[in-house]
Amino acid sequence: MTVPGQLLTVAEKVDARVVAVIDDQRNRWNEVDPRLAELVEELGRMVASGGKRLRSAFVYWAWHGCCLDEDEQQQDEAATIDAGAAFEFLQTFALIHDDIMDDSAYRRGTTTVHVANGQRLTDNGWSGEPRRYGEGVAILVGDLGHVLADQLMAGRGERVRRLWDDLRIELNLGQYLDLRAAAAGEFDRETAQRVVTFKTALYTVVRPLQLGACLSRSAGTAGAWSDAHYHDVLQRFGLTGDNGLIGKPVGDDLREGKPTEMLIHAVEQASPAQRLVLDQIGARDLTPEQAERIVAVFHETGAVAVNENRIEQLLAESKAALSDLPLHTEAKTALEALADYVVARDR
Amino acid sequence: MTVPGQLLTVAEKVDARVVAVIDDQRNRWNEVDPRLAELVEELGRMVASGGKRLRSAFVYWAWHGCCLDEDEQQQDEAATIDAGAAFEFLQTFALIHDDIMDDSAYRRGTTTVHVANGQRLTDNGWSGEPRRYGEGVAILVGDLGHVLADQLMAGRGERVRRLWDDLRIELNLGQYLDLRAAAAGEFDRETAQRVVTFKTALYTVVRPLQLGACLSRSAGTAGAWSDAHYHDVLQRFGLTGDNGLIGKPVGDDLREGKPTEMLIHAVEQASPAQRLVLDQIGARDLTPEQAERIVAVFHETGAVAVNENRIEQLLAESKAALSDLPLHTEAKTALEALADYVVARDR
Repeated sequence: MTVPGQLLTVAEKVDARVVAVIDDQRNRWNEVDPRLAELVEELGRMVASGGKRLRSAFVYWAWHGCCLDEDEQQQDEAATIDAGAAFEFLQTFALIHDDIMDDSAYRRGTTTVHVANGQRLTDNGWSGEPRRYGEGVAILVGDLGHVLADQLMAGRGERVRRLWDDLRIELNLGQYLDLRAAAAGEFDRETAQRVVTFKTALYTVVRPLQLGACLSRSAGTAGAWSDAHYHDVLQRFGLTGDNGLIGKPVGDDLREGKPTEMLIHAVEQASPAQRLVLDQIGARDLTPEQAERIVAVFHETGAVAVNENRIEQLLAESKAALSDLPLHTEAKTALEALADYVVARDR
Repeated sequence: MTVPGQLLTVAEKVDARVVAVIDDQRNRWNEVDPRLAELVEELGRMVASGGKRLRSAFVYWAWHGCCLDEDEQQQDEAATIDAGAAFEFLQTFALIHDDIMDDSAYRRGTTTVHVANGQRLTDNGWSGEPRRYGEGVAILVGDLGHVLADQLMAGRGERVRRLWDDLRIELNLGQYLDLRAAAAGEFDRETAQRVVTFKTALYTVVRPLQLGACLSRSAGTAGAWSDAHYHDVLQRFGLTGDNGLIGKPVGDDLREGKPTEMLIHAVEQASPAQRLVLDQIGARDLTPEQAERIVAVFHETGAVAVNENRIEQLLAESKAALSDLPLHTEAKTALEALADYVVARDR
């Protein structure tokens, strides 16, 4: 599926802001000590390495659709782009820390921070353990990204602040539950759904939409925008439009053994022989052949078909929720295109 | 040295706020899923496990000394205690992440988060590598502390926000330089001073003082408080009053081989034989006997004596800087007592 133009135009503006923030920090610290600027460089390498900028697009179009008129759009766009850039720094922070926890070697086509810096210690003949050094640097690069995210989100008022704090707490708690459930082998449906709700649905869709709406000045004044009902509808759009619930597991997911809806359905429907195949999930040394066989069982048990139906249903519900929202047409069209794209992307 | 009363009264108020924040979060997430509350519990265990609450005392007394009258003190104390609690959460975040980087097993008399959670995986017979799991959980507990710190510091205006962002960036950069210099064996005086300036002087003394002053309403209105000169004096008090420059290395410091002023002086003055002893610094398997011999070389080379003199000189300069500040007497007395205490504590 082609990337919708409404995503690309926002991404371009947000990326320019991200680059400007990195450049500022790099120049500032380079003057003090070039070694300090290395930490900024590493963050810049990861935040610039890609990502669809989905969260900033949800922020932008929710804000855009809530603006009273073009005047407001022109005056407040810079603040909205800042908020979008904040989400991209926050996402980079989360990915850098997650990559340590999962020991992922690659991310967005580039070497992860902990692996690259562990290698740097070895290459330079420095003393210490490469793993500990690389992970230490990656923790700090992530922490720096967290601060810069927060700096971009400052001064936007009480309601935005509350959403921003909540979504950051939810992100951490969701990742913790994910780690803990995988370690403890808690693969029940409730756990899987809760992880996805916290890590993906709320963090990627619902909170960006709500925060974007709160950024518009109209949201603060007009009752229609600020009431609980409005936020409920945004939440419904966000939750039903989210594909994380139904994502198809690939090699690394199978090796980590993280609970997903599809896995749980497959386990419920599996024959004893199929169950033996599924039991291999979570083995760190899973071969490509074994992974292929597991995916075949997902098809045989009907888990894939159930998934496809669920996607269609969720997408329809999502669009219905969207039509209830009192947004400008341009924003509605954009959000519909984003929902289609999110669902199609990982199918 | 006895702990000054001006530290204890602030610590009591700040601790009550810290406990209330942890209780709120624990109750909130316990209702959703008791597993989520575990992350809050771990943070609560670390933030409550001690620490002298020095940073919050500097915030408090700088603010207190800048207040125009008792009315202001009564009305704004809660916000100042919030800012103090923010510093304590930030410090806990930094310690939890630092303990991963240094692989420290104990902190403030309790097992560190990464060690305790690695052990938990083993004890429960969960799957995965204890080290990776324990460190992953500790990264998340630290990140949660960072969010709660930030939440407590929200809504305090532009100048406070800028200081808060700067000190968080400085904290990360200082820790990075510390890690990198130890790995690369860069034990020059300039590097050592820069690490201490970022990690200790600015973060522990200067920024809390400046931020506390900015919290007072008078600071925003009266020119005398808000000008650059005032911040310069606070900076001078903070930098000279800081003991980190001159701290005496103990076992773990010697094993990590982090550059300190005292080490650098000893290396400069050492005979070839003494130099061989100092070369053992940074060995992970340093025995207590070797550590003792290294400390003896610090004495023999005069590094300890030079240090003692430097402490006295810095303390005098610090108090001179303090007398230049237009603060109320009660606050001046408190800050003097804190400076004495900070210097005496680690001598």
